[in-house]
Amino acid sequence: MSNRVITLLTDFGVKDYFVGAMKGVILARSPGSVLVDITHEIPAHDIHTAAFTLNAAYAWFPPGSIHLAIVDPGVGSDRRPILVEAAGHLFVGPDNGLFSLVTDQYPSAQIRHLTRCDYFQPEPSTTFHGRDVFAPVAASLANGTSPEEFGPIIDDPVRLEPMQFESLPDGSARGRILHIDRFGNCVTNLPSDLFPVTAETRPFVLQVKECTVQTLERSYKASALHPNLPFLIRGSAGFLEISLSSFSAERAFGISVADPVCLVWRS
Amino acid sequence: MSNRVITLLTDFGVKDYFVGAMKGVILARSPGSVLVDITHEIPAHDIHTAAFTLNAAYAWFPPGSIHLAIVDPGVGSDRRPILVEAAGHLFVGPDNGLFSLVTDQYPSAQIRHLTRCDYFQPEPSTTFHGRDVFAPVAASLANGTSPEEFGPIIDDPVRLEPMQFESLPDGSARGRILHIDRFGNCVTNLPSDLFPVTAETRPFVLQVKECTVQTLERSYKASALHPNLPFLIRGSAGFLEISLSSFSAERAFGISVADPVCLVWRS
Amino acid sequence: MSNRVITLLTDFGVKDYFVGAMKGVILARSPGSVLVDITHEIPAHDIHTAAFTLNAAYAWFPPGSIHLAIVDPGVGSDRRPILVEAAGHLFVGPDNGLFSLVTDQYPSAQIRHLTRCDYFQPEPSTTFHGRDVFAPVAASLANGTSPEEFGPIIDDPVRLEPMQFESLPDGSARGRILHIDRFGNCVTNLPSDLFPVTAETRPFVLQVKECTVQTLERSYKASALHPNLPFLIRGSAGFLEISLSSFSAERAFGISVADPVCLVWRS
Repeated sequence: MSNRVITLLTDFGVKDYFVGAMKGVILARSPGSVLVDITHEIPAHDIHTAAFTLNAAYAWFPPGSIHLAIVDPGVGSDRRPILVEAAGHLFVGPDNGLFSLVTDQYPSAQIRHLTRCDYFQPEPSTTFHGRDVFAPVAASLANGTSPEEFGPIIDDPVRLEPMQFESLPDGSARGRILHIDRFGNCVTNLPSDLFPVTAETRPFVLQVKECTVQTLERSYKASALHPNLPFLIRGSAGFLEISLSSFSAERAFGISVADPVCLVWRS
Repeated sequence: MSNRVITLLTDFGVKDYFVGAMKGVILARSPGSVLVDITHEIPAHDIHTAAFTLNAAYAWFPPGSIHLAIVDPGVGSDRRPILVEAAGHLFVGPDNGLFSLVTDQYPSAQIRHLTRCDYFQPEPSTTFHGRDVFAPVAASLANGTSPEEFGPIIDDPVRLEPMQFESLPDGSARGRILHIDRFGNCVTNLPSDLFPVTAETRPFVLQVKECTVQTLERSYKASALHPNLPFLIRGSAGFLEISLSSFSAERAFGISVADPVCLVWRS
Repeated sequence: MSNRVITLLTDFGVKDYFVGAMKGVILARSPGSVLVDITHEIPAHDIHTAAFTLNAAYAWFPPGSIHLAIVDPGVGSDRRPILVEAAGHLFVGPDNGLFSLVTDQYPSAQIRHLTRCDYFQPEPSTTFHGRDVFAPVAASLANGTSPEEFGPIIDDPVRLEPMQFESLPDGSARGRILHIDRFGNCVTNLPSDLFPVTAETRPFVLQVKECTVQTLERSYKASALHPNLPFLIRGSAGFLEISLSSFSAERAFGISVADPVCLVWRS
């Protein structure tokens, strides 16, 4: 019996039969697989949030883990089902950019078009490839089938806008809000190592909408003396986050995903 | 150690200790069981939604799986706790119709009244049979105890209104809305095979409330050119669904569960 | 391979990468661990609800289970990370009172300050100790590392207000609302055994806000003849609950957590 980890990340929610049916298909085909939900609460059809969340979670799992990611507004159309090998992990889902934040970091990633229908459910539906296409492929991978069995390599996968920020000649950095978490922390695409842990904090001004940030804190509680002052923090996904010590920065400042941010160094 | 799959479907939500306590009881009695949540977000006391969701999910699990389904407004009253054997699966929960969509399809189903209290927790509460009655019975089943050990067969289980639609002499079909999923797709009780996959689509008009549907699509994206035109689609639960390509059909047309639908063939 | 049960209770919600990352860390370090979610829907930073929920769930799991509980507004500050041994179970999380309802009942509990950083992730973040400190410690425990390896015993853990109610000379009892569940049942801190199951119910009046309760029922359905009459019920967490047969007592009477309740015996 396999005991490979298979993670699931979808926009299916948890009130319907969708997630249960996918898990049933996997366990019927690969009984020892260890199923782990990353989330099923990606907003419906929101590929960007799915890509960010997958990218922040997958690397913590054991090498060889299989990551099913299914946010798939094009299900049943001609969008390709794909299998990605990158960083010692396997990824299965639709070719719509879901995996491009991962593959951007691993130029040696191999991406395959899933063309071998004999690995799918017989007579797959056109509306639920999570159950009928992707889950069976994940189960076969968990059972040891080699990736090359599933179809040919492709070199033109759909890609999202990369996460990279823009570095300007005067030393300032332009980026954007990538994600907002449940606590209202606003995750930028500016990497935490703009402020090395071992060095003294260089004076700065960061601007996002009407919100001006001039301090970097070590913990969310650190600025409790100034509860209404926003601060930067080195977030757990490797990016700088804009936070408040006891309230949602998102709501306090009306910050949204994709809002531009600008970091300027002060002399 | 058993490695039987035990699924859980309840209206307990996930904010309380209820689901954790049930899982603890199962793992304490049957350590190797593989626990899978179908959902805990059935609306409180909504037996119909629970029955639909269970029916759409269970058959994908391996034969011999044990399905705990607990939406139980009558807990502690004289409603019977039951065990159902049908289609190679086992079902455990209250006798209130939860399992009748399954047993309607399997006339050979065996339904037992759980009378053997020695399989329950000692001194079971009157308010949480999920933890004190049904979870221990599921654990004993997973450990190999035979169904006949738990109590006598009954022939008068509570049944919900069957899912069957009405076929009229003129070829039209009358049915109803069974379920609405997270995306707003409205699942009818008209089976998908009214439109055989291999045949050309026969012209039709389907009416539900003020919404008139005249096209059948293969995928949710297919009618993107006409985003405000509702269409029928062969849904993944085996029934025709009323959908919009990029919005909730439920909200666009104010459709609710139990609304009548009428399908008329055009010549 | 270990097959120890590790439960998770957090306020992380389920839409972010947080829970997935923690589970990845555990499975990468302790592949056979059996992960069980108690809940991730504790209201953000609500240590009292977390403590109540943990206390109501943990004891149902097998002895030796490891309970990760992380509601941690002080993450990255000087609050201590701790490991608790009590009642044959292990608990890992921040020292902020999360575990005091458990340790109050077990004076022999041993509480350790997690000082051995070599058991953490290398270079732990200051914002996500769930992933970088507590999950690795739980994995090491699951792999058999002995509690004393992780740090010294402390005797001054943070404690919440105890759950005890106040017994008055005239026989009446003063308590408070501890918790309100998804169905609107209001859990008091008055123990169910104030009304022994085997004895006749002693006449009483219980008052909470404008709501007067004078009957004790055996089941939620029992008072269906008087649907607007609140009743007491022996709840599944061992406490008396204030309930209505078919509606939320919380909403009907505007009851909140911490509201005082008073029980007076009638002659």
